[in-house]
Amino acid sequence: MTRTAFFISDGTGITAESLGRSLLAQFENVDINMQTKPYIDTLEKAQALVEVIEATANRDGERPIIIDTIVDQEIRDVIREASGFKVDIFSTFLKPLEQELNTHSSYSVGRTHSIGSDDVYMDRIHSVHFALDNDDGARTHQYNKADIILVGVSRCGKTPTSLYLALQFGIRAANYPLTEDDQDEDGVLKLPKVLAPHQHKLFGLTIDARRLAAIRHERRPNSRYSSMDQCLQEVEQAESLYRSMHIPYIDTTRFSVEEISTRMIAETGLARRFSPR
Amino acid sequence: MTRTAFFISDGTGITAESLGRSLLAQFENVDINMQTKPYIDTLEKAQALVEVIEATANRDGERPIIIDTIVDQEIRDVIREASGFKVDIFSTFLKPLEQELNTHSSYSVGRTHSIGSDDVYMDRIHSVHFALDNDDGARTHQYNKADIILVGVSRCGKTPTSLYLALQFGIRAANYPLTEDDQDEDGVLKLPKVLAPHQHKLFGLTIDARRLAAIRHERRPNSRYSSMDQCLQEVEQAESLYRSMHIPYIDTTRFSVEEISTRMIAETGLARRFSPR
Repeated sequence: MTRTAFFISDGTGITAESLGRSLLAQFENVDINMQTKPYIDTLEKAQALVEVIEATANRDGERPIIIDTIVDQEIRDVIREASGFKVDIFSTFLKPLEQELNTHSSYSVGRTHSIGSDDVYMDRIHSVHFALDNDDGARTHQYNKADIILVGVSRCGKTPTSLYLALQFGIRAANYPLTEDDQDEDGVLKLPKVLAPHQHKLFGLTIDARRLAAIRHERRPNSRYSSMDQCLQEVEQAESLYRSMHIPYIDTTRFSVEEISTRMIAETGLARRFSPR
Repeated sequence: MTRTAFFISDGTGITAESLGRSLLAQFENVDINMQTKPYIDTLEKAQALVEVIEATANRDGERPIIIDTIVDQEIRDVIREASGFKVDIFSTFLKPLEQELNTHSSYSVGRTHSIGSDDVYMDRIHSVHFALDNDDGARTHQYNKADIILVGVSRCGKTPTSLYLALQFGIRAANYPLTEDDQDEDGVLKLPKVLAPHQHKLFGLTIDARRLAAIRHERRPNSRYSSMDQCLQEVEQAESLYRSMHIPYIDTTRFSVEEISTRMIAETGLARRFSPR
């Protein structure tokens, strides 16, 4: 039996969906079809959505779960008419918070994800372009402006992590790929010269060799690059470099980009330039 | 008077912070110092945090607001001892959801932000590299694989938006900058030839010329590129191209990257490859 859950918002829907997924993730054995409905910011859109919810209730034979972060009272009243089990975040928590803070809440529409100050916007743009300009070992002369420099073998997750740090936290992350070019004459990986002056900013990524081979195989099938031997050797050399140089590192194999990024921040104490919206 | 809010989680803290910021954004007139405390996943970390909370309560002269998404019962019990006003998301909503779904919840630690299936990971990596490979008009031959192609003048927000679409939703977004190279002999902006076969995938971005000039000024101060005249002319030409070619477009001036992206998805019905975690 499938149940449907609607995450409804007058803004982006990010908060309602984030909370909804967290709550429903606790029910592994229930098959739940999740739908996000953002920008429900007029009575007309709310009425149209109620019809969708009714049709879904009829089709499923069970009332949908409705998780919303709508602030406008009239729009709330329309949604409330729908057949559903309601997880009403705002009315549950805003009243007690008003008492605690001894003031009224503003109930303004879609406040959280507004663009914020011009400074935040500029910081974000700068950080994204910094990550791009300093991706994959390019333009090494900007390392002095980096907040953090990610190192690791090719395709271990450096680029997505740098970009996530930039977009969500305004952190300026450069990244540098460890390759055979950085080996000495005995074939031992050494700390690249361009990184030496910035050792305190380095953070290593590592990955299970089998997983790395699978990822590389998607890019260049049946190549030396994607062979198990090559991946194993590169990963071992990278990890032994981290240990010998006391570079903190994280194994990305079982972590999402969100986890890698937030763990890195927690471990280094790196300051955010702004907060995720 | 400043109040402090703690967003506490045994995982990334993204859900607790997202909900916390949404709730507290409704209290504009209260000065709230917000702190996210992720990965509180041992009794020791919880005890250390309780001490931080107590010290904060003493310093502020008011008890902090505590918003948490911790699942483990023993860790919850430790946090509960802290002096604070508690917004207890899970215990508030999980019980009623258990009744509604007629089953027990798993109360497993940090489930939501786990990496998910290998497919999700691969989709994410692919989408990010697709955005990078097709950034700023590069490698135009991959447009047939794009889910959407963002067009707009330089620095109107194309790159951050493409990357956000890739990271959060696995959407393959290319982007193409509209420049004077795309004007005809009379100086009128035309639809670039490389885009013509993909017209149904185009989505325009526009921006207030004054804001554009400020953004460009940060990059190249006092240049023709950043002059008000130039920005005004480019923006007008871009908008008139969108209208004449029936390209849907959005004004990014007052929107965050999250809003631009989610509005674009809502407007085009573009399918996500996965959901934000």
